[in-house]
Parts: sequence; structure tokens; C-alpha cells
Amino acid sequence: MGEARRRQDCLTKPRGSLGRLEELSIKIAGITGKALPRIEQKAIVTMAGDHGVTAEAVSAYPQEVTAQMVYNFLRGGAGINVLARHIGGRVVVVDMGVAANLEPHPSLVSKKIAFGTRSMAKEPAMSRQQALQAIEEGIEVINEEVAKGLDIVGVGDMGIGNTTPSSAICAVITGEPVPKVTGRGTGIGDEQLASKVKVIETALALNKPDPRDAIDDLSKVGGFEIGGIAGAILGAAAQRIPIGIDGFIAGAAALIAAELCSIAKDYLIAAHVSAEKGHRVILDYLGLKPLLDLEMRLGEGTGAALAIFIVEAATKTLAEMATFADAGVSEKLD
Amino acid sequence: MGEARRRQDCLTKPRGSLGRLEELSIKIAGITGKALPRIEQKAIVTMAGDHGVTAEAVSAYPQEVTAQMVYNFLRGGAGINVLARHIGGRVVVVDMGVAANLEPHPSLVSKKIAFGTRSMAKEPAMSRQQALQAIEEGIEVINEEVAKGLDIVGVGDMGIGNTTPSSAICAVITGEPVPKVTGRGTGIGDEQLASKVKVIETALALNKPDPRDAIDDLSKVGGFEIGGIAGAILGAAAQRIPIGIDGFIAGAAALIAAELCSIAKDYLIAAHVSAEKGHRVILDYLGLKPLLDLEMRLGEGTGAALAIFIVEAATKTLAEMATFADAGVSEKLD
Repeated sequence: MGEARRRQDCLTKPRGSLGRLEELSIKIAGITGKALPRIEQKAIVTMAGDHGVTAEAVSAYPQEVTAQMVYNFLRGGAGINVLARHIGGRVVVVDMGVAANLEPHPSLVSKKIAFGTRSMAKEPAMSRQQALQAIEEGIEVINEEVAKGLDIVGVGDMGIGNTTPSSAICAVITGEPVPKVTGRGTGIGDEQLASKVKVIETALALNKPDPRDAIDDLSKVGGFEIGGIAGAILGAAAQRIPIGIDGFIAGAAALIAAELCSIAKDYLIAAHVSAEKGHRVILDYLGLKPLLDLEMRLGEGTGAALAIFIVEAATKTLAEMATFADAGVSEKLD
Repeated sequence: MGEARRRQDCLTKPRGSLGRLEELSIKIAGITGKALPRIEQKAIVTMAGDHGVTAEAVSAYPQEVTAQMVYNFLRGGAGINVLARHIGGRVVVVDMGVAANLEPHPSLVSKKIAFGTRSMAKEPAMSRQQALQAIEEGIEVINEEVAKGLDIVGVGDMGIGNTTPSSAICAVITGEPVPKVTGRGTGIGDEQLASKVKVIETALALNKPDPRDAIDDLSKVGGFEIGGIAGAILGAAAQRIPIGIDGFIAGAAALIAAELCSIAKDYLIAAHVSAEKGHRVILDYLGLKPLLDLEMRLGEGTGAALAIFIVEAATKTLAEMATFADAGVSEKLD
């Protein structure tokens, strides 16, 4: 990081004038352990899972949309496909627990834990064993991608109903009241929002997740894709790969990951701040400042894809700009 | 725009969930008059000029840096070269009035009005005729680029001392007091900043630019590259080409352009908000909301380059995402 900072200060621009691009380039140098990090191989890992709590009418869309969107990802027609192509990255679609028998596809990674979680409004969403398994599968997904070549990863989600477990996790870990961290997800109205808050409050009262035990939180009020993303974060951090965290759901997974291993926070790039209420609470809790604020709330890794482009811009300016000495440009007056 | 909006509402995502990307795609449809606008040919036009007012010690760098940086642009070693390559765009370097005999180069467009302006602290920076000529040359630069193929343009600047005329223009046109719109430019200290404010106040008192006559403002307290950028904005708007406005100096040029032709504002994309004080004042005055806030203050078109990438992301999602019907995805529940 010191070496990268010294180089930034010799490049042909007023010191600090590239603002957050300079900070980012130094951070990536630290994460990767390379003074001139190069980002070439980029992947967005989009983890999909279903949620028993959709039975409580917490979402504006029916549960079958999760599987339908997985097929949309595999055909290349979703937002994340377009944005990943735009940054020259690949999309890795992972079935962590979709409530359907998905047809095999070369681009689909199957790590299915179960056909959706159970409803946290009635019982724990999954067993402790399943929570651990979801995290381990997430780590494994990263290991498989590293084997193919990976310089940076973005993590995103697909799962109808998954802002509900994300709000629950956020409330448990940050200690904030449920209404403060519960938003409209895919676009529910006032009445449905009030009911969603109640469902989460009921689930927390019933299951009593332990704020000091992230595996307990994940199992009682989480989701398979949330566990998978938490694992992907831990796996990537362990391999010194920078991780672009997408929106609210990936943020909830980052809370789980950071509870399990606090140093993982240093490997995270907060891609953007989602329009989903509660995301800002997560970013503040993790001490992360978002790169973008484009009022997006799609998930899938779409914000992470855009942020990876900014990270690449940062590392390229560090590596490719001429120094004052190289270019024969006069330095600042005394 | 209506056609683009209707398509956005059929794409496989919750309505509005791509936030500002959706708005942007609709805006670009309006600017170009195409329901599915495609952005392929991208140029950053970087206009360079020198300023007599540097004799008043308003900058942290010596005047010769303007010419040295032009050569750096032509060799591909500056920040804007790296970021333009990153987005697959070309850099068009324009000598609007550098105070040096620049060697000819295939990538250098010469529209030199004079060897730098005169010091506005002593007399008008240029004649009214030169101000008009600067704007006309800026229009001509765009016409030449359109002939080569141009779907979007970013406008940026290079000119040691040019935050001083930009603050002066901003104060005259927005009516805000000079200290509110005068910042540290390339990084001057408190004492030099106080002196810079005084230089601008003196120049305004001496030259009395007429707030209702933008050509008068440009000639008395402006710069050749500022006039060139204003012309480029008008030229591009006239040809229905979206314009990414870089930072504070390009913003001052946008004020001139919008005073000359108010409808030009609708063709502008505010790329980012610069760390330079006064930029926010300009954006508010023009009614523009910046896309990015990365604390950058380099100029050259660097912020515009990053914003063009976001605009492209917006038009690609509009054009390439599957609709609910195409993808067989269930729509929102009633």
C-alpha cells in the first residue's frame, strides 16, 4: 500500500485529485499484496435461493420468479448479464436453494441445500448444519472460480422474498429496530410493508437468534443464498481477492461474514448504496463508504458490476499514468 | 422518450429498480430521438488554454504545465488517456490558446485563438471577437468529430489557472458571492486562496461583466478553452449528441452555453460533482444532478469518461435486457 501511495503521488496530476480512485487503488494494492494490481478476470457470483417466508405475502412477486429469473440469467437476458458483459466479466449463477428442480446448464453451479428455506415466521429457516453448509458451499464456489482465474469478484443475489431475511439479519446484528431496516423490496405498498415488519418481529421473537452467533442468526432468520454469499466473501478474502458487495442482501451476507471474521471487512468494496431502506445502516455498521449512489435496488450483482468498472479505472490510472519525471512535467511550486 | 419508458417498464426487473440508469436511458432516447439509442463512438474533447491571470499567483503550478500536459495527452500518459482507453473512447486534444508554439501532432487539433488570455486582474481577458471565435471553433471541433462518427461526447479542460476564470464566470452568472464559488484548484493554501478571491473580486469590479450577456462574461473574465467547451456543448446539442460535462471548468462553460441557448441544458449529463468548491453551485443553477461523487478534481474530462460508461450501461440495459414476455417471467402480483 505504501508503494502504491508513493506512486500515486508521482503521477501527472495534482496530488489527491483523482479522489476516491486513488484511495481505491491503494486499497486494492493492500488486498492483493501487489503494488501495481491488475484486474483482468472478473466474475459476478449471483447466488439464488427461495424463502419459505414468502407464504406470509412479504413480496410483490410470486416465488416461482426466482427459478424463472435463474433461467433468464442463463439465457443472458437479465440486468446482471448486460452489465457483466459491459465490464467484460462472467456471471456465475449458483443455485443455493431454489424451490424448483432446475435443468442442468453449463453456466449453472448447483450447490442446492434444500428446496427453499422454511418460514421463519413459524420455525427456524434452516438447521445449523444447513447454515454451515451454505457458507462452505459459498467458499467452494470461489475456490472453483479462482481455479479458472479471478482478479476481482462481485457478489449478488436472486431470491423472491429475500429482503425479509436480510432485514431480520440486519436488525439482529446491528441492534437497530426492525422498522428502521425494513423497506419495500421489489415494491410493496404501505399496508404490505407494515405486515412485513410484523412478520420479521414475530420471527425474531419466536426464534430468538443470538446476536453474538452469526451461524445461529443465519440458520434462524437467514437464507441459503445469503449464507452462500457470506461464504463467497470469506473465501475470496482468504485468497486476497477484492470483493464488490452489491446491495442490501449482499450487505446482510457481509454482516454475517464480518461477524465470523472481522478482518474480512478490509477486503470489501461497497459498490453502491441501494434505494432499499436498511442498506445504509449496514454500510455504516461495517464502516464502508459506497462508491455509487444511482438509486438502484435490483440486486443480482448489478451494482457490484458497475463498481468493479470503477475499481478497474482506479488500478489502471495507478499502473498506466505517466509520472512527472517520465513526462517532463513541472511539479508543484513551493 | 415515451417508447423507451414503456420498454423499461416491461423489462425483467421490478419497475424503477435500475434507478438512475432507467432515467438516463430515457433521457438519451430523448436527446438522440431514438427509442433504443446505441452508444458506440465515444470521444472526450479536452480543450487546453492558458491564462494571463496566472501572473497573479492564483495556481499551485507554473503556466508551462499546460503545454507539458498537452504533450502528455498526446503521448497517452495522462489520467484522461487511461480513462478514455478504459471506456473505449478517443481523446481529442484541442489547443484553444496555449501560451506556447505546440509541435504539430496527428491527435492535436489546433484552434489557437492566442497565446493565452490577458490578465483579467488588469484588463479584459480577451476581445469580444475572440470570445465569439472561441465558441465557433468549439462548434467546429464537434462538427469534425461528428464527421468521424460520434454517439456521445465528454468535454473537459486543461489550463493552469483556469479555476480562477471559472469562479469568476460562476459568480457573475449565478449571482453568488466570489468566496462561495472559489476553491483551492490544484491545491493552494489558505493565504493563496484568500488572494485568489481578491484577484477575482478585483477583476469583476474592474471589467464589470454583464450577467445578461454571456459573451461579455466570457470575454472579460473567461478563457479560450472555456469558450471552446461552451461551443462544443452547443455544437453537440445542435446535433442531438449527449454531452457529459466534466467538472468545475466544464461546468462554467456549460453556464455560458446555457445562457446563450437555454435548451442546451437538456442535452447535458452532469458526470460528477467535483471536490472543487463552486461546482455544486453550478449544477444546482443548471438543475443537473451529478451521476458520480468520487471526490475527483482533476479535470481533463476524467469524470466525464467515467460517466459515459454509466450512460452506456443505461442504454445497454434498455436495449439488451429481456422483457417479462420474452423470458417467461411472471409479473408483479396485484
